[in-house]
Amino acid sequence: MRFPTLQAPAGPVPADAPAWNPQRGGAMPFHRYRPAHERVHVPALLRRWPGHRIERAPLWVPVDLRDGNQALAEPMDPARKQRMFDLFLAMGFKEIEVGYPSASRTDFDFVRRLAEQPGAVPEDVTVVVFTAARADLIDRTFEAVEGLPNVVVHLYTATAPLWRDVVLGKDRDELRALITAAAERMARLGEGRDGLRFQFSPEVFNLTEPDYVLEVCNGLTALWDADPDRPVIHNLPATVEIATPNVYADQIEYVDRHLDRRDAVILSVHPHNDRGTGVACAELAVLAGAQRVEGCLFGNGERTGNVDLVTLALNLHTQGVDPMLDLSDIDEIRRTVEHCNRLPVHERHPYAGDLVHTAFSGTHQDAIKKGFARHAGTAAELGLPEREAPWSVPYLPIDPADLGRDYEAVIRVNSQSGKGGIAYLLQTGAGLELPRRLQIEFAGVVQETTDDSGLEITGEELYGLFRAEYLDAGAGREWRVGDDWAEVDGRRGTGAGPVDAVAAAVGAEILSFNEHAVGSGPDAVAYVEARIGGTVVWGAGRDASVLTAGVRAVLSAAARAGVGRAGTDRVAAGRLTSGRGRA
Amino acid sequence: MRFPTLQAPAGPVPADAPAWNPQRGGAMPFHRYRPAHERVHVPALLRRWPGHRIERAPLWVPVDLRDGNQALAEPMDPARKQRMFDLFLAMGFKEIEVGYPSASRTDFDFVRRLAEQPGAVPEDVTVVVFTAARADLIDRTFEAVEGLPNVVVHLYTATAPLWRDVVLGKDRDELRALITAAAERMARLGEGRDGLRFQFSPEVFNLTEPDYVLEVCNGLTALWDADPDRPVIHNLPATVEIATPNVYADQIEYVDRHLDRRDAVILSVHPHNDRGTGVACAELAVLAGAQRVEGCLFGNGERTGNVDLVTLALNLHTQGVDPMLDLSDIDEIRRTVEHCNRLPVHERHPYAGDLVHTAFSGTHQDAIKKGFARHAGTAAELGLPEREAPWSVPYLPIDPADLGRDYEAVIRVNSQSGKGGIAYLLQTGAGLELPRRLQIEFAGVVQETTDDSGLEITGEELYGLFRAEYLDAGAGREWRVGDDWAEVDGRRGTGAGPVDAVAAAVGAEILSFNEHAVGSGPDAVAYVEARIGGTVVWGAGRDASVLTAGVRAVLSAAARAGVGRAGTDRVAAGRLTSGRGRA
Repeated sequence: MRFPTLQAPAGPVPADAPAWNPQRGGAMPFHRYRPAHERVHVPALLRRWPGHRIERAPLWVPVDLRDGNQALAEPMDPARKQRMFDLFLAMGFKEIEVGYPSASRTDFDFVRRLAEQPGAVPEDVTVVVFTAARADLIDRTFEAVEGLPNVVVHLYTATAPLWRDVVLGKDRDELRALITAAAERMARLGEGRDGLRFQFSPEVFNLTEPDYVLEVCNGLTALWDADPDRPVIHNLPATVEIATPNVYADQIEYVDRHLDRRDAVILSVHPHNDRGTGVACAELAVLAGAQRVEGCLFGNGERTGNVDLVTLALNLHTQGVDPMLDLSDIDEIRRTVEHCNRLPVHERHPYAGDLVHTAFSGTHQDAIKKGFARHAGTAAELGLPEREAPWSVPYLPIDPADLGRDYEAVIRVNSQSGKGGIAYLLQTGAGLELPRRLQIEFAGVVQETTDDSGLEITGEELYGLFRAEYLDAGAGREWRVGDDWAEVDGRRGTGAGPVDAVAAAVGAEILSFNEHAVGSGPDAVAYVEARIGGTVVWGAGRDASVLTAGVRAVLSAAARAGVGRAGTDRVAAGRLTSGRGRA
Repeated sequence: MRFPTLQAPAGPVPADAPAWNPQRGGAMPFHRYRPAHERVHVPALLRRWPGHRIERAPLWVPVDLRDGNQALAEPMDPARKQRMFDLFLAMGFKEIEVGYPSASRTDFDFVRRLAEQPGAVPEDVTVVVFTAARADLIDRTFEAVEGLPNVVVHLYTATAPLWRDVVLGKDRDELRALITAAAERMARLGEGRDGLRFQFSPEVFNLTEPDYVLEVCNGLTALWDADPDRPVIHNLPATVEIATPNVYADQIEYVDRHLDRRDAVILSVHPHNDRGTGVACAELAVLAGAQRVEGCLFGNGERTGNVDLVTLALNLHTQGVDPMLDLSDIDEIRRTVEHCNRLPVHERHPYAGDLVHTAFSGTHQDAIKKGFARHAGTAAELGLPEREAPWSVPYLPIDPADLGRDYEAVIRVNSQSGKGGIAYLLQTGAGLELPRRLQIEFAGVVQETTDDSGLEITGEELYGLFRAEYLDAGAGREWRVGDDWAEVDGRRGTGAGPVDAVAAAVGAEILSFNEHAVGSGPDAVAYVEARIGGTVVWGAGRDASVLTAGVRAVLSAAARAGVGRAGTDRVAAGRLTSGRGRA
C-alpha cells in the first residue's frame, strides 16, 4: 500500500454482520461523539410532513451580506456589497439581510447608504439587520436603520445547552431574562415606527430543548405583540447540522404545531450544510411548515456554508413550481457571486457547475441524442418553440436553455463515450448523419484514438478523424463512369447504375447506401456499407456532386478494405471528366 | 440595475400570498416540468423510515472507477486507476466497482491485471464489473473477470418509461424479456463458479413504476436462484434526482417491503445529486431499508456527481457510529482523489474543504476558544489525551484532529472577527493571555486595520499590531524605582509598591493589573488598565523582569493616553539602573 498514513480498519467484523459484508471497524474514534437523539429529544408527534408536497415557493431571504460575508477570508468591500445587493434585486428577492451594522463599520456605512440614497431600496423590498442581545449593539442597530421604510431587526442569541453553559455561563432563566431585556429595548426603540418588524433566532435551534425554544419564542410573540398584520419572524437555525434531515423536519413540525398565535408568526429556517444535507433540511422543513428560508447563493457561508438558495429555487422549477426568482442567466449570477465572494462555484454544483449539463458516457449521450430528437418532434406537434415545449429528456433534469446555457457543452466525447455522443457531435458540428452501424464502426476508431491519449476530443477533431478515416480514403483515384459502366484506375465494371458499376470495378458488393445533403450547403455526403474480399466495411464520400460523393464512398470502402489503397493511390488529374455533370 | 439579462419577476403577487411575502412569479418557464408525483406513484404505505435511526454502517461500494471515471473530461489512465484502487484498499473498502470492461479497453486491461497479478486483490475484497444487457458485452465481461476469486457481475438496464419509450423502443414485456435473456446468459456463464454473484440495476429506478421494478427484480431473484448464502444485489439508482428525498425513501421502503426472498437480497442504493440532496437520499434510504450504498469519494460522477461516500461515512462518525473506513488522513485521501480525477474538492465541501473547520466570525471564534478550554478541562478530568476525550466544541461538529488536521486553520481573523479569535491567535501564537476588556479594546484596533484593507490578518501580524500598539508604547522613557517610589523622566511619585509609584509619577490610577509568564520562556507580560486624565486605557509591557514588564505596562497606558508620548519620548540610556534586580 502506498498510503502510509491510512490503514484499512483492522477490528473484528461485527458478529452479526452478514457474510457479504466483511467491513471492519475500529479505525476511527467515533466513540467520542454522541448521536443527536441523545443530545436533544423531540417529543412524540403525529408526523405529517413526509406526506406533504411543496406547492409554492417560501419567502427566500439571502443572508450573503451578513452570514455569508462573515465567512469570507476577504469580506466584501462596499463596492462588492453593493454589487451583490443589486444582484438580489435583479433576481427578485424581496427581503434581504444586509449586515451586522453594530459589529462592523463597513456594514454600518452600507446600511446608512441604503437609508440615505434615494431609490436605493425599492418600496416592496425589506431590509434585515442582525444584532446580538446587547443594549449598546441594539441602540447602534436602530441608529443604522433610521429612515429605512421597511426593516426587520433580527435579534439572535445562542440558546443551546452547550452554548449556555460554555459560552454564556447562563442557565435557562437567566438567558430568557437577557433575551427579554433585549426584546423590550427593541420594542421601546421601535415604538410608533411603521414598517418595522422583529425577528428572533434561537441559535443552534436544533440542539436546543424544544420546550425551551417554545418558551422563548412564544414569550417574544407576546412581548412584541405580534399580529397577522405585523407578524414576528421566528427563525430556527440549524447553525450546525447534527442529524439526518428528517430529525430537523420533526423539530420544525413540533414547533410549528406549538407556536402561539400561529398566524402572527412567520416560521423561518436557516440550515447550514455540515453534513451535506442543507438543501434536504430546508426542503423537509418547508414540508413541515416553514414559510421562509434563509440561505446564500451557491451555498456560501461559515464552514461548509449556508443552504444554497439557487438550488432550492431551481428544485422547485424542475417540479413545475414557480421559483419566484429570475434564474434565467445562471452564468451571470454565478460570475457576480464569484466576483463578490472570491470563491469558485464547483464544477459539479447543481444547476450552475461547468459540468452539470455534460454527458461523457456513451449510453447517456445516446439517450440524450434520442431525447433531443423526440423533444423537437413534440415541440413541432404542439406548434411550440423548442424552448417552450414540455421538457422530458433523459439524464437532463432541466433544459439548459432555461438557465441561459446552450447545448454545446451537453455532450462531450472521450474514451468513455459511445456512438451516441459521437454521432451527435458530428451531426450538430459538421452536419453529418451517420447510419447506425457506421456510428458503431466509427466509435471504435474514436476509441482507439482517445484510449491512447485519455483526452477529450472536440467536435472539430472528430470531424478531422472522420475525414481522414473515411472521406479522404476514397480520394485520389482515377475514375470515369457512364450510366451503367465505370472504369477505375483502368479496371472496368458494369452495373445497374454508375455507383454499382464502380463497386463492380473494385470488386465490392454494396450492402447499404445512404446519401444526404450537408445542412443547407452545396455538398452531399454518401455512406456505403460494402462487402469486399470477405469483410464488411464502411466508406463515405463528400462532394458538391451527389454522384461523385457516391462514387467516392465506394472507393473509400474499397480503400479501407485494402483495395486500391496505399501503393495504388495516385493524384487523379482530370479524374472527374465523365463523372461530373452526370449525377 | 446593472444586470441587463436579469429582471425581477414581474408577474402578480399570488392572490393568497400574505402581505409579508410580496414575491412575484412568471420569470421562469416552470410550467414545462411535471412534478415527481405526477410522473411516478408510490402505492400507499405504512411509512416507518422517519422513525428509524442509522445504527450501523451499510456496505460502502465506491464506483469511482466506473461511474465516476465515465464522467471525467480526462478519464483515468491505468496508473491513476491503480492509485485510486490502492486508496480504496487502504481506506478499508471491501467491495469495489472497477470498471465497464466490455466498453473500454483500458477497463478490460485493468480488470485482467487485477485477475492475473498475484495479491492484487486481497481475499476479503470483492470486485464488481458493470455490463449492459447485450450478449457480446456479457461474454466479454466474463472473459475479463476470469480467475478473479470474488466477483459481482453488475447488469444494468434502463427501465423507466421515458427510457423504454425514447431510448430503447420497447414496452414493459419486451424489456423484461431482454433482461431475462441477459440474466439467463449470465447464469449459464457463471454456472459452477464459486465466489461469483450477480447485481441488477433498474436504471432511473426512481422514475420507474414500483410494480415494474418488483416484477423485474423478483423475477431475477428467482432466475438467479438467490439464497442467503449467495444473495443477489438489487441496486436502485436515483440516476437523476427528481424529488425531495423523502420520496426516494418512500420508494425504497416500498420495494424493501415487497421484495421476494428478502433475506436472499442485498438492497442497494445509488443516489446522484442533481438536486443537491444525494447525501440525504442515501441516508433516508438506509433508514428505509437499504443495506449497501454505491457512491464516489467527494461526490465525483456524471453531471452533479454521485453521492459522496466520505461525507456519508463521517456523518456516521459524528453520530457515534463506526464508519468502518479509515478517514484519519482526510488530506491524503483528498490529494489522491484530486490527482486521479483532476477535479478539485471545493473549499466548503463537508469535512474535507479548506475552509470547513475555519471560523472568521467573532462570535464563533469566541465560542470555539471557550470550547477548546472546556475540552482541555474535560480531558484532564477524565485523564485522557485531548484527542481521545469526548468532543463537544461549539461550531465544530468534528474534531479536526480525527481527520489528521491541526487547529491552525480553525480560527482566522479579518474584519468580521471579534475578540475571541484575536485572543485565541495571540494565545496560541504568541503566548499572550489578554484580559477580557483588553481583548475588546484591541479588537477595535484590529478592526480599524482590517476594515481598511478588507484582508485577513495572520497570528504573526496580530502580534506585530499588539506590539506596536501596546508593548512598544511603554518603551523609551527614563525611569528609576525603589520600593515605594519612582522617578520617570524626572517626575517623582510614591506608592504602595514600585508600579504604583510609577503610576503616581505619570498621573495614572491603576484599575486592574495582570501579569503572566510567556509560555515556558524567560519573559513576563503585564497588562494594566488605568484611568489617566479622565479616560480609561490599557497598557502592556513585556520583559524578562516581572517588575520591568509591570512598569512598562503603566508607561504604555500613559503613552496611549497621550502622557509622555511623542515629543517626550527619549532613548533611555541606563534606564534600568535601579529597576533591574529589584523586582
